[in-house]
Amino acid sequence: MKIRLTIIVLATTLITAGAAQAADDFKDVAKQVAARHVASIQMLQEWIALPSIAAENLNSKEGVEYMAQLAKDAGFQSVTIIETEGKPGVFATFDAKAKKTVGLYFMYDVKHFEPAEWTTPPLEARIVDKEGFGKVMVGRGAVNQKGPQAAFLAAMRAIRDAGRKMPVNLVMVAEGEEEIGSPHIGQIVHRPDVEAALAKCVGVFMPSASQDPEGVVTVSLGAKGVVELQLISSGETWGRGPGKDIHSSLKAMVDSPAWHLVKALDTLVSEDGNTITIDNYPKPRPLSDEVRAMIAESARRRNEASVMKQLKVQHWIDDMAWAQANERLVSQPTVNIQGIVGGYTGPGGMTILPHRVEAKIDLRLVPDMTKDGAVAALKSHLAAHGFGDIEVNVTGGYDPTSTPASSRLIQAQVSVLKKAGIDPVMWPMNAGSYPGYVFTNEPLKLAAGHFGLGNGGGAHAPDEYYVIESTNPKVEGFDGAAMSFVRYLYELAK
Amino acid sequence: MKIRLTIIVLATTLITAGAAQAADDFKDVAKQVAARHVASIQMLQEWIALPSIAAENLNSKEGVEYMAQLAKDAGFQSVTIIETEGKPGVFATFDAKAKKTVGLYFMYDVKHFEPAEWTTPPLEARIVDKEGFGKVMVGRGAVNQKGPQAAFLAAMRAIRDAGRKMPVNLVMVAEGEEEIGSPHIGQIVHRPDVEAALAKCVGVFMPSASQDPEGVVTVSLGAKGVVELQLISSGETWGRGPGKDIHSSLKAMVDSPAWHLVKALDTLVSEDGNTITIDNYPKPRPLSDEVRAMIAESARRRNEASVMKQLKVQHWIDDMAWAQANERLVSQPTVNIQGIVGGYTGPGGMTILPHRVEAKIDLRLVPDMTKDGAVAALKSHLAAHGFGDIEVNVTGGYDPTSTPASSRLIQAQVSVLKKAGIDPVMWPMNAGSYPGYVFTNEPLKLAAGHFGLGNGGGAHAPDEYYVIESTNPKVEGFDGAAMSFVRYLYELAK
Repeated sequence: MKIRLTIIVLATTLITAGAAQAADDFKDVAKQVAARHVASIQMLQEWIALPSIAAENLNSKEGVEYMAQLAKDAGFQSVTIIETEGKPGVFATFDAKAKKTVGLYFMYDVKHFEPAEWTTPPLEARIVDKEGFGKVMVGRGAVNQKGPQAAFLAAMRAIRDAGRKMPVNLVMVAEGEEEIGSPHIGQIVHRPDVEAALAKCVGVFMPSASQDPEGVVTVSLGAKGVVELQLISSGETWGRGPGKDIHSSLKAMVDSPAWHLVKALDTLVSEDGNTITIDNYPKPRPLSDEVRAMIAESARRRNEASVMKQLKVQHWIDDMAWAQANERLVSQPTVNIQGIVGGYTGPGGMTILPHRVEAKIDLRLVPDMTKDGAVAALKSHLAAHGFGDIEVNVTGGYDPTSTPASSRLIQAQVSVLKKAGIDPVMWPMNAGSYPGYVFTNEPLKLAAGHFGLGNGGGAHAPDEYYVIESTNPKVEGFDGAAMSFVRYLYELAK
Repeated sequence: MKIRLTIIVLATTLITAGAAQAADDFKDVAKQVAARHVASIQMLQEWIALPSIAAENLNSKEGVEYMAQLAKDAGFQSVTIIETEGKPGVFATFDAKAKKTVGLYFMYDVKHFEPAEWTTPPLEARIVDKEGFGKVMVGRGAVNQKGPQAAFLAAMRAIRDAGRKMPVNLVMVAEGEEEIGSPHIGQIVHRPDVEAALAKCVGVFMPSASQDPEGVVTVSLGAKGVVELQLISSGETWGRGPGKDIHSSLKAMVDSPAWHLVKALDTLVSEDGNTITIDNYPKPRPLSDEVRAMIAESARRRNEASVMKQLKVQHWIDDMAWAQANERLVSQPTVNIQGIVGGYTGPGGMTILPHRVEAKIDLRLVPDMTKDGAVAALKSHLAAHGFGDIEVNVTGGYDPTSTPASSRLIQAQVSVLKKAGIDPVMWPMNAGSYPGYVFTNEPLKLAAGHFGLGNGGGAHAPDEYYVIESTNPKVEGFDGAAMSFVRYLYELAK
C-alpha cells in the first residue's frame, strides 16, 4: 500500500473553489433536526441500553437486528444482515439517483465495561451536566460510536423531513467486531454485492465527534496498522524447564521459561526500549518536508504541557521536543508490552518456578508494512535467536491505512470545517488504529476517514460521554453534529 | 557463617559406639503411646480445625494460645507467650534435672488453602484410606507441621505415663510466622531468657515426617538461605514513561516501564537464565570431595526418572547427568522469577502502555552468603547498570544454615535410624529454606535440623496428609513416629 500525503496548500486551493458554490444555509433541515431532537436522543438512549460485546458473545444477534432497523428507520431502502464466521454485519444502501455515492462505516458493538467504576449506570445513558460542556449523555458507546452514528441517522431523517432529495447515494457497512480488531470485516466488505456498491463511492467515512474542548478539529489522513499477539514461553513447548509450576529452589537444576521469555523479549528492542531490533524488520520511510510541516503546525496548535499532564508523562522519549515527539508518533512503528503475566501474581511472593509466562504485545505498523509481514519477521527473528519454541499467538490486527489529503473525501471535510470557522489541524497518520485498510487497500483503494462535529470522551473507559446540548460556544451538541453531517453530504455531492 | 561437612565415615564410626550402649526396647512407652492413640488423633484433628495464617491475620492469637496449652498439656513446666512486632510465639521449658538439654523448634501457623481444591474439607482432618500408605489424615497442616509436632507431644506424654523420667531437659520455641518467612523469629529466639535457655542445648530440631514411600530417610545438614523480593518498574519512580496506563499507540513517543524492567532483568542472569551475572555477587565455594561423594550416593539411591516425571521435567540445566544436577542443586545460588505481572493480564490483549510492572524474585543463598549481602549486591548492580530507579522491595528471607554431620544432634539421628534398619541418605544442604540460621548463626551457633519417622505430603498444596495407621511396612504411622521421638530423646541423652 502506498501513502500519498498532499500538501495543505493544495487543500486550501480546493476549499476556495467549494466555498464559491455554497449558498444553502440548511435552515429548513436544521428545523427538522430540532423537531426530532427528543426522539433522536431517546433512540440513542435505547440503543445504548442494548450493548453488543463481541468478546463476551453478548447481544450480537440483537445488536445487528437493531442496527438494521435503525438503518431502515433512517431511510435506507435496502438493508441486509450479512453473516460472517464471526459476528454478523449490516449492508444497507440508499439510492437517491444522485451522481455521487458516499460510503459509511458503522459499528454496532461497544467496549466491555465495569458498572462499578461508573458514576451513573453505563446502560442508562443518563443526561447529566458536565463542567465546560453542558448536558452530556453518559453511557457505554455514547461517543464510540453510537452517539455520532445516531447524529448521522438524524441528519438523514431531517433531510427527508425537510422535503429534500438526498444529495448523494449512500452505502453503509456496519460491523459488530470493531472492539476486538475487526477480524471478519473483510467478509462483509468483500462480499461481491457489497464490494460492487462500495466501488462506486467517492470514499467511506465513519461518523465521529472530532471537536476538542477548544473546538479544534483534527483531520486525519490515515492510521497505523496494528498487530496484537501473545508471546508465550512454556516448559511444554520449550522442552526445557518444568511442565508445571514447581518449587523455586529447583531453579538450581531446572531451566526457567520465565527467564527464557525475558531473554527473548530483550532481543526485540534497544536498551532504552524504543528502537525495534527485530531482524529484517521494515524500516519506516523518512518524513517528507510536507508531513514534517503538517506535524509542526499541529504541534504548534496543541498544548504540550496539558498533554503531558493528561498522560502523566514528564519526558518524551530521548527528551525530544514536542514537535519531534509528534514526528516520532506519526512515523515510527512500535513494539509495546501491553501486559506480562506468569507464575505467582498475588500479593507478596510465592516460591515457585513457573512453567508458563506470557507477554501481551502490540505492534503498530506504518506505511509499507503489513500485519502478515510484521508477524513473519518476528517469528523469523525469534527462531534465529534461539527462541523458536516461543509461541506467537496473533489475536488480531490489520494493516495501516492512508488517504490522500487531495481526495474529495478529505477536501470536503476541510471545506465544511472552514465554512464553520474551524481551521482544521491536518494530521498525517493516527498512531492508534482502525480498519480503514479494508477500504483503502486493494481492490477498493477508496479514500477513508472520520468526520463529525461535536465532542465526547471516555471511549473504552468509565463515564464515556457525548455532548447533547452544548454550553461551550466552541463545541457543537447533538443537533449541531447532525447538521455537520448534512453539510458534509451536500459538500460531497459537489 | 561457616559450614563444616563431615564425612559419612565419621558418622558410621559414631553410630557403632552408640549402638553398643542401647538395651532399652521402650515397650512400656510404646504401650502408653498406643493407649493414648485415639486421644492424640483427636487432639491433632482439633488443632487442624484451628488454622493460624499470618498472611491473612487469621487466628494468630487463638493459635498461639492453643500452642501454649498443648505445651502445658504435654508437660512443659514453664510456658510463656512472647509478643513480637509480628505474630506472637511460645517459649516453653521442661526441666528434667537431666544432664543434656534439647531444643525444639515448632510452628503453629499453616499455609493458606483453597477448600474448593480439596477432596475433603481441609479443616475437618478426616481419616481416609490412601493407596500404598493406609489410613491418613487429610487436612491443612497435617504434615506441615502439626502432625509430626503432635506425635512429638504424644511421645512426651507417653514417657511420663510410663512412669519414666524425661531423659533430657527440653526448651521449645514456637512461632506463628513460618509460612511468611519467619520475619520476627529473632525477637523470640534472642530474647535474653530464651537465648540463655537455648544456649544450654545440644541442638535444636523440628519434628518432621521424613520417610519417603520406600521408607528412606534423608538427613539434611542445612538449608540454603532465601530472599524474596519484588522488582518494581514504574513511571512514577523512573521519571520516564507514564504515571498511569495510557494508550499503547503512545509507545512511539513515551518510554515503557515494562521494557525498562525487561532490560533490568536481562542483566541479572546469563543467556540461558542459569548463571547469575549480578556484579560482585558472591560465588559459591567449590564442592569438597566429601560432599560430592555424599551427593553421588544420594543420587544413586534416588530414581532420576521418577523425579523427572513428578516435576514434568525432560532435561536438567545444560543436560547435566543426575548426580551433576544434584551437585548444582546443593551448591549453586539462584535468581528465580516466581512471577511477573503488569499491565493488562486478562484474556487476549488490551492496547495499553502500562505504567507499572513487577517481577517477583527469589534468591537462594549458599554458605558464605547473607540475605543483606545479596540484597546489597543486587541494588548496587541495578544502580550501576542504569536501573537505580527500580524499586527493590524485600518481603522476607533469611541466611543459609548448616550443621556439621559430626554434631551430636545429627549423630543421634543417624544412630536411631540405623537401629530402625534405615540407612539414611546424608544430604549436605537443602535447596529449600527454613530459618535454622537463627539457631546456627551467632551467637547461639547450635546444631539444628529436622527429625521424625513417618510420612506425609502435600505441604502448601491441596489434600495435605499425614500417615496415621500405616499399611506400608516401610513407613511408620502416628504411633511409630511418636516412638521415633522417644528413641531420639534417649539417644540425645547419651
